[in-house]
Amino acid sequence: MAGSIYGKRFRISTWGESHGKGVGVVIDGCPAGLELSEEDIQAYLDRRKPGQSKYATPRKEDDKVEILSGVFEGKTTGTPISMMVRNYTQRSTDYSEIASYYRPGHADFTFDEKFGFRDYRGGGRSSARETIARVAAGAVAAKLLRRLGIEILTYTRSIGPVTIDYDRFRRDAICENSLNMPDEEAARQAGEYIESVMKQKDSVGGVAECIVTGIPAGIGEPVFDKLDADLAKAVVSIGAVKGVEIGDGMAVAQALGSENNDGFCMQDGKVRKRSNHAGGTLGGISDGSPLVIRAAFKPTPSILHEQETVNQSGEDIRISIKGRHDPIVVPRAVVVVESMVALTVLDAMLENMTARLDRIVDFYDRI
Amino acid sequence: MAGSIYGKRFRISTWGESHGKGVGVVIDGCPAGLELSEEDIQAYLDRRKPGQSKYATPRKEDDKVEILSGVFEGKTTGTPISMMVRNYTQRSTDYSEIASYYRPGHADFTFDEKFGFRDYRGGGRSSARETIARVAAGAVAAKLLRRLGIEILTYTRSIGPVTIDYDRFRRDAICENSLNMPDEEAARQAGEYIESVMKQKDSVGGVAECIVTGIPAGIGEPVFDKLDADLAKAVVSIGAVKGVEIGDGMAVAQALGSENNDGFCMQDGKVRKRSNHAGGTLGGISDGSPLVIRAAFKPTPSILHEQETVNQSGEDIRISIKGRHDPIVVPRAVVVVESMVALTVLDAMLENMTARLDRIVDFYDRI
Amino acid sequence: MAGSIYGKRFRISTWGESHGKGVGVVIDGCPAGLELSEEDIQAYLDRRKPGQSKYATPRKEDDKVEILSGVFEGKTTGTPISMMVRNYTQRSTDYSEIASYYRPGHADFTFDEKFGFRDYRGGGRSSARETIARVAAGAVAAKLLRRLGIEILTYTRSIGPVTIDYDRFRRDAICENSLNMPDEEAARQAGEYIESVMKQKDSVGGVAECIVTGIPAGIGEPVFDKLDADLAKAVVSIGAVKGVEIGDGMAVAQALGSENNDGFCMQDGKVRKRSNHAGGTLGGISDGSPLVIRAAFKPTPSILHEQETVNQSGEDIRISIKGRHDPIVVPRAVVVVESMVALTVLDAMLENMTARLDRIVDFYDRI
Amino acid sequence: MAGSIYGKRFRISTWGESHGKGVGVVIDGCPAGLELSEEDIQAYLDRRKPGQSKYATPRKEDDKVEILSGVFEGKTTGTPISMMVRNYTQRSTDYSEIASYYRPGHADFTFDEKFGFRDYRGGGRSSARETIARVAAGAVAAKLLRRLGIEILTYTRSIGPVTIDYDRFRRDAICENSLNMPDEEAARQAGEYIESVMKQKDSVGGVAECIVTGIPAGIGEPVFDKLDADLAKAVVSIGAVKGVEIGDGMAVAQALGSENNDGFCMQDGKVRKRSNHAGGTLGGISDGSPLVIRAAFKPTPSILHEQETVNQSGEDIRISIKGRHDPIVVPRAVVVVESMVALTVLDAMLENMTARLDRIVDFYDRI
Repeated sequence: MAGSIYGKRFRISTWGESHGKGVGVVIDGCPAGLELSEEDIQAYLDRRKPGQSKYATPRKEDDKVEILSGVFEGKTTGTPISMMVRNYTQRSTDYSEIASYYRPGHADFTFDEKFGFRDYRGGGRSSARETIARVAAGAVAAKLLRRLGIEILTYTRSIGPVTIDYDRFRRDAICENSLNMPDEEAARQAGEYIESVMKQKDSVGGVAECIVTGIPAGIGEPVFDKLDADLAKAVVSIGAVKGVEIGDGMAVAQALGSENNDGFCMQDGKVRKRSNHAGGTLGGISDGSPLVIRAAFKPTPSILHEQETVNQSGEDIRISIKGRHDPIVVPRAVVVVESMVALTVLDAMLENMTARLDRIVDFYDRI
Repeated sequence: MAGSIYGKRFRISTWGESHGKGVGVVIDGCPAGLELSEEDIQAYLDRRKPGQSKYATPRKEDDKVEILSGVFEGKTTGTPISMMVRNYTQRSTDYSEIASYYRPGHADFTFDEKFGFRDYRGGGRSSARETIARVAAGAVAAKLLRRLGIEILTYTRSIGPVTIDYDRFRRDAICENSLNMPDEEAARQAGEYIESVMKQKDSVGGVAECIVTGIPAGIGEPVFDKLDADLAKAVVSIGAVKGVEIGDGMAVAQALGSENNDGFCMQDGKVRKRSNHAGGTLGGISDGSPLVIRAAFKPTPSILHEQETVNQSGEDIRISIKGRHDPIVVPRAVVVVESMVALTVLDAMLENMTARLDRIVDFYDRI
Repeated sequence: MAGSIYGKRFRISTWGESHGKGVGVVIDGCPAGLELSEEDIQAYLDRRKPGQSKYATPRKEDDKVEILSGVFEGKTTGTPISMMVRNYTQRSTDYSEIASYYRPGHADFTFDEKFGFRDYRGGGRSSARETIARVAAGAVAAKLLRRLGIEILTYTRSIGPVTIDYDRFRRDAICENSLNMPDEEAARQAGEYIESVMKQKDSVGGVAECIVTGIPAGIGEPVFDKLDADLAKAVVSIGAVKGVEIGDGMAVAQALGSENNDGFCMQDGKVRKRSNHAGGTLGGISDGSPLVIRAAFKPTPSILHEQETVNQSGEDIRISIKGRHDPIVVPRAVVVVESMVALTVLDAMLENMTARLDRIVDFYDRI
Repeated sequence: MAGSIYGKRFRISTWGESHGKGVGVVIDGCPAGLELSEEDIQAYLDRRKPGQSKYATPRKEDDKVEILSGVFEGKTTGTPISMMVRNYTQRSTDYSEIASYYRPGHADFTFDEKFGFRDYRGGGRSSARETIARVAAGAVAAKLLRRLGIEILTYTRSIGPVTIDYDRFRRDAICENSLNMPDEEAARQAGEYIESVMKQKDSVGGVAECIVTGIPAGIGEPVFDKLDADLAKAVVSIGAVKGVEIGDGMAVAQALGSENNDGFCMQDGKVRKRSNHAGGTLGGISDGSPLVIRAAFKPTPSILHEQETVNQSGEDIRISIKGRHDPIVVPRAVVVVESMVALTVLDAMLENMTARLDRIVDFYDRI
């Protein structure tokens, strides 16, 4: 598997399985001079940890990050930053049964087909624990972006049929409810919905939304490495994501040109768009408006609800997956989306620095 | 701009502007021994050429491809394949006006912001003519895939509010109507809808759908280079695409786990999925079911309808874009989607060859 | 073959065979705003063209470059620059015989082994004509480097046993003799030596030397993409190069530490090295001293001298290669070395721009 | 610094400083199914550890590797393999002085220039301890290569003026003397020479030689990713290497074509070269003969011998570097060269699998 390295300039190499010794990441290409501590990383990791709400798995995970290299006297040195989160002890018997059959909606079958066998303990590399590495790296990228004036806000937009009402949007609410919704009323309704789903031994999907503000115009590399194309890959690479939208997204298919085009106007002597149906990119290059990205997450595949599958002896069987599983992925995935977006936007910012000769000449003249 | 190279094993490097000398592509990594002629490429290019229907621009483009290298005695040699399509002569005065303002929905503004100036003739590099290079390369990838038993079918799924009815799906219909819809009745309705939109000097969006059959299980590289993640990037990198879906796509957000999970069963001694909500991937690896990808295209941004923008003097102005522009992008973009999917699937097939030691040993034992 | 793309930021994709339609290159990642014309490229190409001296092949090649994209109103636009040199007509019968056997010292055998067959016309892709593409791209890189205050000087250091005397070094002499030696007396002796070798139907090797001045300290990316490591690859990728040296090169193996270490001193308030045994790099990063690179070229493999080989029927045979071949590769290869060094140094300069956070913040603050 | 990732298919990402928490590597792209244990890695690491001879530093380093991921039930899973060696406790006072000046021949100055400051403890990232990560990864690559029938032999060819005599070459001798020379008599002479150098408070250079046998013809990707070009980069990326040779190396510059060309002959029904001046490559592709690579290492830069340099106050000073430093780099570097060659050859073997369509079709037909 050669797919565990991400990025072109700010490159991350992730490793680890759910029931191995730990999960980690090496960042190659982090600029020197960023103040960085384990607390910076931990704050992000804590946002994805389970057991934060009654809707999330009651497992006790205490993911503590250790920075192993690349930071000296509190600052990044420009050399690789290695970070690791050790796996806590866990009864392996919890997962012994799943070695014998293919769980629907999981990667058990495809890992076997690709590699000939698999680490069947809790999903191994295909477990959601893999995202710890993304979040640890994303925390560094997000801190760098803040130094460049760029902020990323991510939240749960919808859970099953319950969607937030933008008239009730309150940024602080995101951290105040366990579903990470910026609309308390929607969070309340979604909570009730989740409880009804749990009673049916079922799970449910939802949508995460991410807004990037402060990004200057000009970021993104046409024609293949467009900013929105790279963001689409970033987000769909997260397990359980089956759809991604930029700006108006799928809805553009039913719009008219006169509705969908964002007109330009002058504002404070600068060119600005009058609206943002485009979600912040034109021709794959940032246009100065906020980036708007949405990701649709499928329902958690592990459910108590009875399902049909096959076992190792090639028999059709019916199973019911026990264990502690979140009935909804989105709230814990919000910080993963934010991390992948941060990594992608930062990479594009670094890439863009070589776009113009005059700026390169200026850069070296000033050294 | 460093974003004009695509792929990891089967790499393409594209070049060209709408009003420069031509458009072309160099393929690096095409295996030796494929029978290849200019006719193979031309067949694909002809599918994207304008003037094929009354709904498409009446411009007369006759894009003839020339293979410049990499083919000897009718077969690919394993060395780079260079292909070029010369631009036909065109009155440059057609586009003189657009140098003076930013067209809404186009990349004029963002190219200026990124590079300091732009080739303003017809969009330059951001023109849809750029996709000629994608299609030329895609034709080679698709031919290689057919040798591996993989077929790709792409068509228009919806135009504005008109969506195909799968009960009326007829594969041959795709080539029989100028909208590339597999449902004649839908094509008829969509045609009427487009005419009404044209009367309003407006344009409309739509959805292209792509089905890949014959792909074996095991293709795709977790965790970042998942097959669906790479497909998402491939498709969103096409100009005008604002949303992409794999399998059930955005709809998974409202599904229950018991509905969304595809159960497994034994069929002819092999493990098969009972349904395909996942769209052919599990954990980012192909699962043996057909791949299902959808892309939402925004309405053509160039419209006669009056729009607001700014000119070079920094004044707010109102414009109406003359010239011959398709009122709908999708039908001509179908072959572009197919090409990007072909390039991506082929790349993943080549990448997968090194996943298992036993197969590598076997490969070299047989040489 | 997936090895025809070079570079990370300033990436080139080359194509073409000796007897196909032409040879070309696409540059992806050239910054916008460089004044560039076909004359800039042609000046470099003319330095590698044959027929310039009595020691070079009397073939009449007139390699005219055409810029196909990426330049608008005399300046690079930031989009891919495609360049092509059409092959002149040549009697293909000249090369018909070599299809039947493997030429010693050539890649005929290895191309057959790798790809199953080969374009046998004049070496196909393994012909020295491939370097036209390197030189065309190198001309652009060198022009960019001059804007950054960096100059590259390349010349013939030795031919067979004749080495230049640095006491007689005169820069202008390089262009004044057909062997590109900066020492006229050495050039005269080398000329006599070559004539004696030609009488024996033989060929001879030599060394090219390259000096890069004006490069600031700090360029190069440890630990793998060290500046000298990348230069070594760049130079050895040129056909016929079998050894490469940085600074004192192979001689360091017999030096003492006290001799080899370059002490530091203050000069005009800046830290300077007192000597340059290191050839301009410390730890793979440029140290402010000139880069010094040497490449050893093997003798031209095509010789009239009788040689042993095998034919397609699997018989041991003796051959004598007719045709017009240079008895020495180095003088024409000097500009190829210079081009590869220019491409590599430029790439490292662009890469280095993201090394420090303070400079990145400063860069974006100024936009 | 974005240069700590190496390889295209078998990619390694290394991290760690001499006085940080440890040194490590993540391998992305290791095929599934290789039996692998910490003992396999440890055997390689032990070959580079100090304190093995009286000529090496008497420091007590006990580098124990830990495999953190990617191995399940004794076999590689195809997912990333993370390995770490914790740094042993060491008095940091040993290195406190070097923070105040630039050591000649070291990267202190250039790291400061590039990153604005440096981890001055023992060289930080530019320390030779960085090579632990190369060797750990190289051990995996070498084990894979052995499964493909490829063996790598590396040894000290020369130390200062003492070169091995190939008539006395004995493979077993390499491990029997602490200088890793395959000629006991040369080892004895070199030992005496080193002692005399040490008495002068000085250090000395040398040459490592590497022979790769069993590699099939056809490996390497022209025109830039030639096997010898990639090997040149691999070897020069090792600290202290200033020259690299393939086959006859620099000596080809003085050879005649009739001497240097390797004729072909039939042997057991196969095409073979009659000699191996080329060192195993033609046109950058392996030719079935053994690969022969030589690397020239400069003398250890840290010497007791008085040297001139500057301090942080910008004063010219004279220093004498205390501490325990090897007077010769080569013997301990032999396994580093072997590791870099293993990584590079394996990568090229994997890359080559997609060169021919017939073999790709055959590969997928057999799945």
